[in-house]
Amino acid sequence: MDTIVYSREVLYYETDRMGIVHNSNYLRYFEEARLEHMKQSGLPYIKLEERGIIIPQTEAHVKYESVLRYGDAFRVEVRLTEYTGVRIGYEYRIVNAETGKTAAEGKTCHCFLDDAKRTPVNLKKRLPEFSAAFENGIDR
Amino acid sequence: MDTIVYSREVLYYETDRMGIVHNSNYLRYFEEARLEHMKQSGLPYIKLEERGIIIPQTEAHVKYESVLRYGDAFRVEVRLTEYTGVRIGYEYRIVNAETGKTAAEGKTCHCFLDDAKRTPVNLKKRLPEFSAAFENGIDR
Amino acid sequence: MDTIVYSREVLYYETDRMGIVHNSNYLRYFEEARLEHMKQSGLPYIKLEERGIIIPQTEAHVKYESVLRYGDAFRVEVRLTEYTGVRIGYEYRIVNAETGKTAAEGKTCHCFLDDAKRTPVNLKKRLPEFSAAFENGIDR
Amino acid sequence: MDTIVYSREVLYYETDRMGIVHNSNYLRYFEEARLEHMKQSGLPYIKLEERGIIIPQTEAHVKYESVLRYGDAFRVEVRLTEYTGVRIGYEYRIVNAETGKTAAEGKTCHCFLDDAKRTPVNLKKRLPEFSAAFENGIDR
Repeated sequence: MDTIVYSREVLYYETDRMGIVHNSNYLRYFEEARLEHMKQSGLPYIKLEERGIIIPQTEAHVKYESVLRYGDAFRVEVRLTEYTGVRIGYEYRIVNAETGKTAAEGKTCHCFLDDAKRTPVNLKKRLPEFSAAFENGIDR
Repeated sequence: MDTIVYSREVLYYETDRMGIVHNSNYLRYFEEARLEHMKQSGLPYIKLEERGIIIPQTEAHVKYESVLRYGDAFRVEVRLTEYTGVRIGYEYRIVNAETGKTAAEGKTCHCFLDDAKRTPVNLKKRLPEFSAAFENGIDR
Repeated sequence: MDTIVYSREVLYYETDRMGIVHNSNYLRYFEEARLEHMKQSGLPYIKLEERGIIIPQTEAHVKYESVLRYGDAFRVEVRLTEYTGVRIGYEYRIVNAETGKTAAEGKTCHCFLDDAKRTPVNLKKRLPEFSAAFENGIDR
Repeated sequence: MDTIVYSREVLYYETDRMGIVHNSNYLRYFEEARLEHMKQSGLPYIKLEERGIIIPQTEAHVKYESVLRYGDAFRVEVRLTEYTGVRIGYEYRIVNAETGKTAAEGKTCHCFLDDAKRTPVNLKKRLPEFSAAFENGIDR
């Protein structure tokens, strides 16, 4: 699957006293885009949770390149770059929709866990019918 | 029980582009103080959750009186003002610790719910041994 | 002006360990809707800030009626109910878009301040050309 | 200077519906610890802002190793690892205070900017008297 684009505007309470989006919110923007990617891949995250699987974040990297301010329209371009059944990785680029400038780039990694036991799960074995959505979603 | 005092400093990310604590964070300060109140009453909230009870908020009122800025030390004075077994109410005053000025006043109401069924619970009947902590905690 | 409707879905990080939207986020939803109301009234908040005026919240009231969960589509119906030049008030209703159930109702009050001096301002005198947008926006 | 330790407990609203601290909050914990480090180095961040300097984040990396839950006591161990006058870098380890398990490790990089012009600043030249606090603070 190609890059998915998720768009919205910066909300007032996402800014801090520097007048810019607080650095922690970029991880939230990544998450919003990632969940949209899952939805468009045909596998909304909620379906996984209903089957007892959660996907906590194991790693995150953000490179902040230009600031976003209240009211700025931005888009997050998100790609699924790795899927092993056990682990999944995404890459992101946040772009100021008005200026076209890159606001941030980043990656996150996640693992699949059994929600009740909190132990690692291989999705290929546990829910093969769901696994395909990720396999097809990889942007090679 | 008397008023409980909960103290800390304003964190950087709690401010917004006006340079002051975002209005929504006062409800978070109330919550922090309320949970501290429960702890000091001998009934940490986690104990209730372990017994399958949650206490969602049913009402909140905040009157903002003076601003708080990054680094300001403040205290939240919290009192338990109502407890029926079904419902519980708290009142709060947030004070700038340096100036002594009231930053905000407010109240919240909550009900007891069975976490699994999400139905109302009378704590006096369900967990009488826990109910006493609230009964003794009321500031009359 | 009639009620303005602002719509979106609950984001994952807006939930807490009860599995529902954290109570403080309703004040954020109110803010998002209020700023949309200002925009549709022809007076985006950013224009006021550019002219040195801020509108901090002086009071808030929320009545929580039913829970919202991750992924729930909701709308905020927002009405401007009071405008004196010095003070401004809004009322809100948050509705679960799927079930039609009211999730919360509330009100907020705000005042106009000079951003540099942090002193009260009468917008009717200070920026009469902007004041009209609020006067016309009242839902009587 | 040696590692600085910043300690507190997980707050209720910092958890998400997985029942664990939301991944974005680790960047907030890093920030809290970093600002404490600056304070203990004799240069509270507020002093820099008063002199017209801000220190936005240019890069962040987080490796999540074990979960934190509501009420968990944790400490953030923070070290200043790089300071060039133009750029500054910190490393962090978050430890569950009860179990001693590492919850997360990470790094952040920041640059110095003139707040008004939003242009890069060399702190060694601009505020040499402040620069020393960072130079002495490096953990070699």
